[in-house]
Amino acid sequence: MKVFSKETYINRRKELKRKMGSGLLLFLGNEESSMNFKDNWYPFRQDSTFLYFFGLDMPGLAAVIDVDQDLDMVFGDDLTTVEIIWQGSHTALSDLAETVGVNKTKSKAELPTFLDSISGQRIHFLPPYRPENFQKLEAYLGKSPQEINSAVSVQFIKAVVSLRSIKSEEEILEITNAVNMSVKMHKRLMREAKPGMKEYELLGLVNYEAISAGGTVSFPPIITINGQILHNHNYSNTLTNGKMLLGDFGAESAMHYAGDITRTIPVSAKFSDSQRDIYQIVFSAYQTAVALIKPGVRFKEVHLAACRKLAERLKDLGIMKGNLDDAVQQGAHALFFQCGLGHMMGLDVHDMEDLGEQYVGYTDELLKSSQFGLKSLRLGKELEKGFVVTIEPGLYFIPQLIDLWEGEKRNSDYIDYKALSNFRDFGGIRVEDGFEITSTGAKVLGDPLEIEIGEVEALR
Amino acid sequence: MKVFSKETYINRRKELKRKMGSGLLLFLGNEESSMNFKDNWYPFRQDSTFLYFFGLDMPGLAAVIDVDQDLDMVFGDDLTTVEIIWQGSHTALSDLAETVGVNKTKSKAELPTFLDSISGQRIHFLPPYRPENFQKLEAYLGKSPQEINSAVSVQFIKAVVSLRSIKSEEEILEITNAVNMSVKMHKRLMREAKPGMKEYELLGLVNYEAISAGGTVSFPPIITINGQILHNHNYSNTLTNGKMLLGDFGAESAMHYAGDITRTIPVSAKFSDSQRDIYQIVFSAYQTAVALIKPGVRFKEVHLAACRKLAERLKDLGIMKGNLDDAVQQGAHALFFQCGLGHMMGLDVHDMEDLGEQYVGYTDELLKSSQFGLKSLRLGKELEKGFVVTIEPGLYFIPQLIDLWEGEKRNSDYIDYKALSNFRDFGGIRVEDGFEITSTGAKVLGDPLEIEIGEVEALR
Repeated sequence: MKVFSKETYINRRKELKRKMGSGLLLFLGNEESSMNFKDNWYPFRQDSTFLYFFGLDMPGLAAVIDVDQDLDMVFGDDLTTVEIIWQGSHTALSDLAETVGVNKTKSKAELPTFLDSISGQRIHFLPPYRPENFQKLEAYLGKSPQEINSAVSVQFIKAVVSLRSIKSEEEILEITNAVNMSVKMHKRLMREAKPGMKEYELLGLVNYEAISAGGTVSFPPIITINGQILHNHNYSNTLTNGKMLLGDFGAESAMHYAGDITRTIPVSAKFSDSQRDIYQIVFSAYQTAVALIKPGVRFKEVHLAACRKLAERLKDLGIMKGNLDDAVQQGAHALFFQCGLGHMMGLDVHDMEDLGEQYVGYTDELLKSSQFGLKSLRLGKELEKGFVVTIEPGLYFIPQLIDLWEGEKRNSDYIDYKALSNFRDFGGIRVEDGFEITSTGAKVLGDPLEIEIGEVEALR
Repeated sequence: MKVFSKETYINRRKELKRKMGSGLLLFLGNEESSMNFKDNWYPFRQDSTFLYFFGLDMPGLAAVIDVDQDLDMVFGDDLTTVEIIWQGSHTALSDLAETVGVNKTKSKAELPTFLDSISGQRIHFLPPYRPENFQKLEAYLGKSPQEINSAVSVQFIKAVVSLRSIKSEEEILEITNAVNMSVKMHKRLMREAKPGMKEYELLGLVNYEAISAGGTVSFPPIITINGQILHNHNYSNTLTNGKMLLGDFGAESAMHYAGDITRTIPVSAKFSDSQRDIYQIVFSAYQTAVALIKPGVRFKEVHLAACRKLAERLKDLGIMKGNLDDAVQQGAHALFFQCGLGHMMGLDVHDMEDLGEQYVGYTDELLKSSQFGLKSLRLGKELEKGFVVTIEPGLYFIPQLIDLWEGEKRNSDYIDYKALSNFRDFGGIRVEDGFEITSTGAKVLGDPLEIEIGEVEALR
């Protein structure tokens, strides 16, 4: 288990206490997750907020911060003699807690009693996303599922989001580490993808690169010749000449920070003319966005500027038409770019998604739009120094969506459905990198990875 | 999604109905499992019993067999228009159900109402091992967690076990496929493991071999220089000359059948003298067991014969002493062989472990022993033609256990603790293969994989 310095965790908790003012903060660590029988487990993944404040990377833990008493406690159990025989000896929990600056540990069994004994203090907890932690909250707090959902502490969520959003230097280094691992995964795929291969062969390769570097994948990789399918975890297709291969994946470092990169490459040695055209449009939207991101700029405006760039270039190609200010305002471009330009990245690839997009990506004054396209934008609010965000524009030709809109003549002032018919089976292209927001602008994270057409073709 | 023929599933369900006689059988498929936020999922794994009887390999399904009405139904939902835009078009559930011989499908939302409407028929269900399926049973059946636990249907468990225990020819082929993938994983590791490497580099390699062949790992691999730690999912050690490397892992095929093989190799080019001695003892126990397995033989007796062989050879080495019949009866050998000789293998690596070891590995007449060592033997009952089992003897020198027993002078009539002190830090050795029980004996599954000392050294 690799942790930052003791002071890092002490300071994070101190800052959290300052923001909360009072109350009892309950942190539930994650448990092992069963695959096909109880003891056949998926690789363990600790909860990210637990990692952020307590650093301890093992199942079966909980923690409490009593803000009023300025007291931090970890609840968990040491191995029994029998367990040591099967699992080997482990460092005692109290010694592990010491490494993250926590001096008080108790047995897990004491947690319900401890929580029961609390009176006159609000018990703050975060929204559970695993069923077993939902069950624990019901049992510990004596609440129904409905009551758990409505008793989640918005104040606690906002305090955690405000801290985790601003990455420290040591976090930036760790994210860079994850991004560099991700770059290696992509270079390997870009070099080795060949016609005749199955997508799952490349899935094996990128898993190899992540795991053999001491990490894992930060989310289920997307490796597909059907880039237009946005949520795609099928790997059964064969790579064929003329197709493109979209790879959206990244590594999770040993300390559980995420990388997330997308490249789209031709299966053949070169892009075709139309692939080149669409790729250049996507890349110009990427460049537009990268040039704009800096503290004080709303990410929603960056998203819309990228959309505007996509629309302009699609108009040059004859697929869009009319007044482009109106087109973007009406969301006409979302026929081709249905999702958001990017998201925060940190201990989670979609950082803090469990805490709720409204709290992570928006503010009390800036609510998420319900317009198709914009409603999938995870991050809308003003960027701040220390944010880490992805920029990932794309163009996706989804036959079902094209048919749906054309049938309704939706946005037909802005879309030339006849010209579009040539691209109906084009597929999809996305490019994505991670960026650190600096005091004056932004810096791409990690080692360089080929992105321009010439660079990509040189690797093939 | 690859399935067997329609008739295979129809016949399995027909046979199950015959064994049950009457009642309503409820099958819960698995859901997606969240890692660090709700929509960041581990790779989906369908429930094995669901796969066995219904073959459908996707989340969000349930099924019902009404034995009295001879009616098979699958509950699930087709993608909505919005979902098709994000996930691409999928085959309709009714068409998928057709491929496994089920003509009746209903929406998932209809399941609670359907179950509510059942009267006069017992609703049989299997023990849930995932929290969300436990919650579903509580909700569907209006029962408390305690009531769910006590209402699990033993008749249903026994009927499923009796069917799944006997592997058909097509299942043997599919298991062989998984074993062959596992053999490739092992050969790769045996060839590439070198001093200075980290265990996780080899973890990456074996994952690559499994995934790039269209499968995955059948359980979290054990790849360790500390073979004496039996439950070990740490991969952070460096391979050093003089150590051994124990690799216990296997592939899961695209149809979710498991392979499971163990080899122990020297990190150096050759085994040391003492490693050779202990390896030979373990291998002789393996040979003893392999020679004995056939229909009608209790696996418990095979286990004890292997233990006896280990004890004999440990006596030759001076570590054990005294009357070996008594020693084995007292469980003295379990200081070195703390676990069981093997287990069933099929759709699960420990086949049907979710259904309960007593029902899978024992009978009403043969209960599991509570003696240390024997209590970890998952399979004790008579072997039958069509069983697939592993044979995996080992010798593990666990310092904490040696200290515990020596402190208590436990079994000191049979163990020479002084001679043993030379082996205190020896580590652990295990070898394992999978076998099909044939009408006259047994057949090792899959392509040959080096196991004898000379063969192993030739690969290094």
